[in-house]
Amino acid sequence: MKHQIVPTTIILFGATGDLSQRKLFPSLYHLYIYNKLPSNFCIVGTSRKDLTDHDFRQMIKESISKKSFDFTHLDEFLTHLYYSQQDVLSEESYIKLNQKVNDLESKYDIPQNRIFYLALAPKLFNDVTDFLDSSGLTTVKGYKRLIVEKPFGDSLNSAIQLNNEISTTFKEHEIFRIDHYLGKDMIQNIEVIRFANSIFEPLWNNHYISNIQITAAESIGVLDRASYYDQSGALKDMFQNHLLQIVALLAMEPPISLSSEDIRNEKVKALKSIKLPTKQQVLSDYIRGQYDSGNISDESVKSYREEDGISNTSNTDTFIAAKIMIDNFRWAGVPFYIRTGKRMKEKSTRIVIEFKEVPLNLYYQSEEKLDSNLLIINVQPEERIEFTLNAKHYSEGMSTKPVKLHYDLVQDQEYHPFDAYESLLYDCLLGDSTNFTHFDELIASWNLVDCIHDVWQQHKPSFPNYRAGSQGPRQSELLLSKDGFAWWENN
Amino acid sequence: MKHQIVPTTIILFGATGDLSQRKLFPSLYHLYIYNKLPSNFCIVGTSRKDLTDHDFRQMIKESISKKSFDFTHLDEFLTHLYYSQQDVLSEESYIKLNQKVNDLESKYDIPQNRIFYLALAPKLFNDVTDFLDSSGLTTVKGYKRLIVEKPFGDSLNSAIQLNNEISTTFKEHEIFRIDHYLGKDMIQNIEVIRFANSIFEPLWNNHYISNIQITAAESIGVLDRASYYDQSGALKDMFQNHLLQIVALLAMEPPISLSSEDIRNEKVKALKSIKLPTKQQVLSDYIRGQYDSGNISDESVKSYREEDGISNTSNTDTFIAAKIMIDNFRWAGVPFYIRTGKRMKEKSTRIVIEFKEVPLNLYYQSEEKLDSNLLIINVQPEERIEFTLNAKHYSEGMSTKPVKLHYDLVQDQEYHPFDAYESLLYDCLLGDSTNFTHFDELIASWNLVDCIHDVWQQHKPSFPNYRAGSQGPRQSELLLSKDGFAWWENN
Repeated sequence: MKHQIVPTTIILFGATGDLSQRKLFPSLYHLYIYNKLPSNFCIVGTSRKDLTDHDFRQMIKESISKKSFDFTHLDEFLTHLYYSQQDVLSEESYIKLNQKVNDLESKYDIPQNRIFYLALAPKLFNDVTDFLDSSGLTTVKGYKRLIVEKPFGDSLNSAIQLNNEISTTFKEHEIFRIDHYLGKDMIQNIEVIRFANSIFEPLWNNHYISNIQITAAESIGVLDRASYYDQSGALKDMFQNHLLQIVALLAMEPPISLSSEDIRNEKVKALKSIKLPTKQQVLSDYIRGQYDSGNISDESVKSYREEDGISNTSNTDTFIAAKIMIDNFRWAGVPFYIRTGKRMKEKSTRIVIEFKEVPLNLYYQSEEKLDSNLLIINVQPEERIEFTLNAKHYSEGMSTKPVKLHYDLVQDQEYHPFDAYESLLYDCLLGDSTNFTHFDELIASWNLVDCIHDVWQQHKPSFPNYRAGSQGPRQSELLLSKDGFAWWENN
Repeated sequence: MKHQIVPTTIILFGATGDLSQRKLFPSLYHLYIYNKLPSNFCIVGTSRKDLTDHDFRQMIKESISKKSFDFTHLDEFLTHLYYSQQDVLSEESYIKLNQKVNDLESKYDIPQNRIFYLALAPKLFNDVTDFLDSSGLTTVKGYKRLIVEKPFGDSLNSAIQLNNEISTTFKEHEIFRIDHYLGKDMIQNIEVIRFANSIFEPLWNNHYISNIQITAAESIGVLDRASYYDQSGALKDMFQNHLLQIVALLAMEPPISLSSEDIRNEKVKALKSIKLPTKQQVLSDYIRGQYDSGNISDESVKSYREEDGISNTSNTDTFIAAKIMIDNFRWAGVPFYIRTGKRMKEKSTRIVIEFKEVPLNLYYQSEEKLDSNLLIINVQPEERIEFTLNAKHYSEGMSTKPVKLHYDLVQDQEYHPFDAYESLLYDCLLGDSTNFTHFDELIASWNLVDCIHDVWQQHKPSFPNYRAGSQGPRQSELLLSKDGFAWWENN
């Protein structure tokens, strides 16, 4: 459980790409400002581009300068950056890279601790890890770690195959599979809220919780990710990873300790406890959607099929709403309603835990129905914990009204906002894999996703079926209303 | 349970006194603004003073004008006010009053519904109620109700005697004993919070609550109440009524319904379950104090014994801190710590429910100890509900920090502040005695207070023992620290 930051070299593949420029380098600099990088470190970027160290530093400087950071230490930080041109399919360039890394490790006195971050297309993972091995880059005296981006496979079989491939070079404990939702403060807060407060654990079960709702709504469309997204869809792009990870964190039993290993064991158990739906259940409880044209924030936007790079007969799902049942003592009978989609009304990621009604309504008068108690964990855009209680309606006899107790992270004076990637890079430097996806979690989640995908393949959807700017197709509302519930919308 | 406002005459004894001018008439006018007085009503003030209706209205107008109300309807309201000079010990003046009331009831078409409010010294209650009876004032076709102010007796025996006396004219359900704390919004919120929210009842017991703290601190001294206060002290002035009422509301079992009757039954049961302390326990668990000179808000104030009208050898308690144990299945082992005093650091009435620690501290690392979860009901000066949780300390690995979720009544847009008396006068007009003290509650609370008082009488205290502007004597801190707790101070 005790992790330590030690001198490290970070080797970043795809260093000139969008993710690196927009997220990774700014996050690394932000860690640097807060003294969270090792005392001795260097970062070696690679890509196909022909750049000098100087060119590369200029490029990174520009990217970081777009953020609203304190730039006092930026030039100093940039001196730790190096560049190596790379043909990821040529062993020669790995040998050259290894030489450069070795030289830098001598210069910086780094005992061969190496983090390899692959900001690359997954289809390259196999070749890259093979070359890392054959070129000697992964033959280190210190530690070696691999960070890979999603998607990790696109089915159970492909995920197993991919894993087999990279496992020849990296062991499971050396592989850090990024799910950037797990780097978000409010997602990490789930386990703290659950296990660092004595009042929740007694309530955290089917005696007191009526249902749990998880929403990850985006207002953006596919942007420039058309070719990837049209293969993947909401089911594989969001549901398989981010949303099932949130389910696992909410549903897991209390781990023996907060070690990566103990938490993972409980998450896997939770994911395995999800009832695999029958064909009929997939059709009734897993609602898919695709957006039509519509309006968002008074701007008209086109339909999915009209987006650049998308076929006008595409049947890819841009929305999914699901009712998940977890078959164990704690959760039997408590639906987890999950939805995610593109081109929805507004960007909003939130978790709503709805508690059961008061068993005997002491306040029953005329037709008054009490509001449910809600614990709301708002992940984005606002980071907020909220509790909805019923309080007395002042000076109105004994009638009640729902009131919101809330804590807004942004109002906390000590708070400085940080990106999920910052948090995850730091964890990787520590060697703490708690907030990364482990392979057995992947197996469990792909197993469910395959089951849904297979049934969907056999039934052609009638798309588009929701307006851009709406909360998804009508069936998503019906999914809850037939159980007597409704989505708790942000307001 | 269904109460209704009907045409009513309010007859107010002591109408020119401080309470009437400062609280009662402003409250009545405020009710009038909000359309909460009956359609047909009149108010007859009485006192020893020789005033005309016109004089009286002028006097009330001045008193109400000191408040920050909407005065648009003030003149209209004043036309409902009448005056009758009264010698409370002469039957003749009651007969005259009865005649005036009868005439007004004809004029206003009020079917003899009469509320008698005695803003008088308790020693007069017996005579006044006798004369009300003999003069025919209480011989009504409609309802008759009596409102009396505290103190109701100064011991169990005197309370019983006083009750016997007024009971010859008024039945128990016609007697409304004011405890103005019960009119405060946040005190009334206790039962709403407990019973209108499904999450609290499962936690509301000795499995999850470690202790409950009730503080009613005043920064003022005895003001002009020296002669009364020196007889009474904190024990009888605050503890016997306000504080034990709060204990009863917090500790009672869920009532069958929220009817006055059902709630009272549960409150009485809770009060009766308070363990009567042995002599030794009174000395160890009931800490009394008397203030010395000191500083409050940078102003030096004199000691209690130096106050006008107080003997310089007075042994009256101006402070009490008590540890109360309730002997039932729900509360066995959970101390209720209670304190109240004059000349304390600041005016603050609050209830802190401290939950037990997390049984297995998953976050145990080095010496870190998690903060307790607290539910805080702040009664005054701010009206606030607050929940202290442990959340993740952002970007600091898995360490936690306590955060406060809060709801501030004053920030609620629909809220308009109202006085406790307003709420209680309205309840009396409705005939709803829920928020008044019933006789069997008095019996139970005087029983405990007598027990403490008897022991105290036998042991001379060494007063003064706390500085004005402090939080009371040091023994009050020790009372909790020997159990491993500490007062949660306002911050």
